[in-house]
Amino acid sequence: MKIAILGLGTVGYGVYDIITNTPSVKNVEVVKILGRSLNKNSLINQPLMTTDYNEILQDETIDVIIETMGAKDFSYQCIKQALMNKKHVITANKEVIALHLEELSKIKEENNVSLYYEASVGGGIPIISSLEEIIKTNKVFEIKGILNGTTNFILTKIFQENINFNEALHLAQKLGFAESDPTADLEGLDMVRKIAILSSIAYSGNIDINDVYHYGILNLKDDDIEFIKSHNYVLKLIASSVNNLNKVSIEVEPVLINLGNTFASVDNEFNIITVDANINGPLAFYGKGAGRFPTGNAIVNDLVRIIENRTNYTYKAKNKLKIINRVKEERYYLNIKDLNLVDKKIIDSQTNNLIITRKISRDVLLNMLCNINFYARIL
Amino acid sequence: MKIAILGLGTVGYGVYDIITNTPSVKNVEVVKILGRSLNKNSLINQPLMTTDYNEILQDETIDVIIETMGAKDFSYQCIKQALMNKKHVITANKEVIALHLEELSKIKEENNVSLYYEASVGGGIPIISSLEEIIKTNKVFEIKGILNGTTNFILTKIFQENINFNEALHLAQKLGFAESDPTADLEGLDMVRKIAILSSIAYSGNIDINDVYHYGILNLKDDDIEFIKSHNYVLKLIASSVNNLNKVSIEVEPVLINLGNTFASVDNEFNIITVDANINGPLAFYGKGAGRFPTGNAIVNDLVRIIENRTNYTYKAKNKLKIINRVKEERYYLNIKDLNLVDKKIIDSQTNNLIITRKISRDVLLNMLCNINFYARIL
Repeated sequence: MKIAILGLGTVGYGVYDIITNTPSVKNVEVVKILGRSLNKNSLINQPLMTTDYNEILQDETIDVIIETMGAKDFSYQCIKQALMNKKHVITANKEVIALHLEELSKIKEENNVSLYYEASVGGGIPIISSLEEIIKTNKVFEIKGILNGTTNFILTKIFQENINFNEALHLAQKLGFAESDPTADLEGLDMVRKIAILSSIAYSGNIDINDVYHYGILNLKDDDIEFIKSHNYVLKLIASSVNNLNKVSIEVEPVLINLGNTFASVDNEFNIITVDANINGPLAFYGKGAGRFPTGNAIVNDLVRIIENRTNYTYKAKNKLKIINRVKEERYYLNIKDLNLVDKKIIDSQTNNLIITRKISRDVLLNMLCNINFYARIL
Repeated sequence: MKIAILGLGTVGYGVYDIITNTPSVKNVEVVKILGRSLNKNSLINQPLMTTDYNEILQDETIDVIIETMGAKDFSYQCIKQALMNKKHVITANKEVIALHLEELSKIKEENNVSLYYEASVGGGIPIISSLEEIIKTNKVFEIKGILNGTTNFILTKIFQENINFNEALHLAQKLGFAESDPTADLEGLDMVRKIAILSSIAYSGNIDINDVYHYGILNLKDDDIEFIKSHNYVLKLIASSVNNLNKVSIEVEPVLINLGNTFASVDNEFNIITVDANINGPLAFYGKGAGRFPTGNAIVNDLVRIIENRTNYTYKAKNKLKIINRVKEERYYLNIKDLNLVDKKIIDSQTNNLIITRKISRDVLLNMLCNINFYARIL
C-alpha cells in the first residue's frame, strides 16, 4: 500500500517516524511527502519530498493520503480532491472536519473510499473510534471534555503551580503547546470545533460551529484567580454538549470544579472526554491531547484500519438537530463591572464585585454578559 | 445470523434485551437460550429455551454462541466445543479467559472462527478492543486498574460515606454487587484474573494467574480505617502490572492514595484502567465495571464485530514472560502484630502499632507479612 503525507510539521514527521520504525505496521510504503520547501528537513530521504500537491493527488499508484498540514481551505481542497480521485484519506484537521464532515462523508461514500479522522479530537485518545462503537448500540445523552492542551496547560500552571497568566502562556509557547497567536485557543474556538465534531458523530447530525456558544479565558484576571483559589476551586475550560431528543445545548466555557472532581486532576496537555449513554452508562477517556507521537499514533491506527480493510467510519447526518440554550439552571461565579445593575435576588454570596449566584437560568446569565468582566459556571 | 445465548442470569438477560430492543443491531436472531430450567423466566418466549446444551452446540444452523453462565469447567467445555464446531464465541467469563486464553485462541484459529471477550474485563469499558488497537503500534509498559465493582463499592461506602465494613458488604449484597460468598472478590482473586487477561494481551504473552501476587481487604479493620481517614488518604484495591523487557511484576493489593488522585474519584461499581505505552503515552478508560446493561452492551458490541466481519482479536502468546517481584522501592502502611520484630530503620512515622515505612524493597515487605495484620502500599 502506497502512502503520501501532506505536511511535514510536528504531526507529519511523527507519522513518518512511527510508520518507518514500527515493525508491526507492515505492507505500507511512504512514497511522497508534500513539504513547503525541499530543503527543510534533511532527516527525510530527499527523493520522497515534493512541493507540488498535484504530483501526489494525480498519482494513481498512491492509495492513501495522510493530511497533516492543518491549513483551512487548502487542506479541505486537497482532502476533497483526494477522495474524488479514489484515495483513502486520513486527517488530523479538526477545522476541516468540523466544517465539512457531512460533505466529505458523502464524497467518500460516492467514491467508495475511507475517510478517517481519529486524530482530529483528543490527540492520542481513541475517542472517535470509541464513539463509533458506542453509537452502534447506545443513544448518547451527553459529552463533556477538556479538549484543548494549550488552555489546560496554562490553567494548570496558574491554579496548581501558582504561575501568573502571562508567564504560563509564555511557558506554553516555549514548550510548543501554544501557537504564537494563541487567541483561537484562549477564546475556546479550538474546543468549539472538537465538541462540534464529537456531537455530530454521537448524535448522527450536523452541528454548525457558528451555533456553538463559547466564552474563553482571555479575560481571566488576577482577582478572579485569587477568588477561585481561596474558595478551593480549580478553573477548567470545558466543552459540554447535551442532547435531549435532538435538541442540543452545546457550549465551551470556564467551569469551577472541586478538587475531588475527576476533571480537576486532568493536568497540562492532557485531555479527558466523558460520554454518557443510555445502555453503557457514563464512560470516560483520558490521555495526551496533543503532541507528535500521540497524534501521530492516532493517524497510524487509522492507517492500520485501512490496511486491515476494516469497516469505515459510519457518520451520516441522519438527524436534524436543533441548538438550544443550556436548559438546566446553574450557579455561576461572576466578576461584575457595575454592581448597581445586578438583580440582588440572584446573589448567593458576594465579595466586593465578585459574586456567586444562586441557580439561575441561562437567559439571566446571557443578559448580564455585557456587565461581566469574567464568569465561570460552577459544577 | 443465528445466535444462541448460554445462561439467562443478569448478563444473559441483558444481552437478550439489548439485541431485541436495539434497532441498529440488524440481521441477527436469537434462536436458542440455555437455561437451568424451562420455567424460570417467563419473559422469554418458551420455544427459545432449552436445558440441553447439546441441542445448541450440535445445531449446525447456529453461527454464534454467547456464553454468560459464568461457570468454570462447564463454560470452558462449552466454549471449546463451540469453537471446534466452527461457531463464533463471545464470552463474559473472566475465569475461563484468564485460565485458557492461549489454548482457546489456538482452537479458534484452527477452526477459522472468532473468539471475543470484551465483557470479561471492565464491564462496559471498551478496554480489550482498545488494548488490541494500542498494541498495533505501541509497546505497553504498565497497566493499572480498579477492576472489581464489589470491593470498590465497599471501600467507597467505608471511606467516602463512613459506613462500616459489614454494613457496606451487606449493602453491596442487597444491591446485587456482591456474591453471597464474597471471598474471591475481597481476597482480590477476581482482579487477579482481570489483570492477568489484560497483561497477557498487552504483552502478547501468557500470565499464569497462580503467579499473580494478591493481598485483599479481608483483614481491613476499624483501626486501619480510622488511621487512613485521619491521614487524608483513600484506600483502593488496585491491580498493577509493569513490563520491562518481558520481566513482569504484577500484583493486586490495597493502595493508599491522596484525594486529588484520579483513582480516588472512581466510586462504587465504577472501574478505571490506565495504560502506559511508549508512543501514546498514558491513557485511561473509565466506566461501569459491572451490571446487566454495561456488560451486556460489551457483548453486543462484540456481536456487531462478528456481524460486520471485522478483524478478529489478534492475541497470541508470542513472548515468554518472566514474573518478578515489584522492582521499585515503595512506602507502605503497616498494621503490625509485634512491634519488637520490626527493624526500626524502616519506620518513617508511627502511631502505636500503625506504621508508615520509608521506601523499602518488596522483599522486606514480603518477609514481614506474617507479622502484619493489614497493609497497603502508598502511592
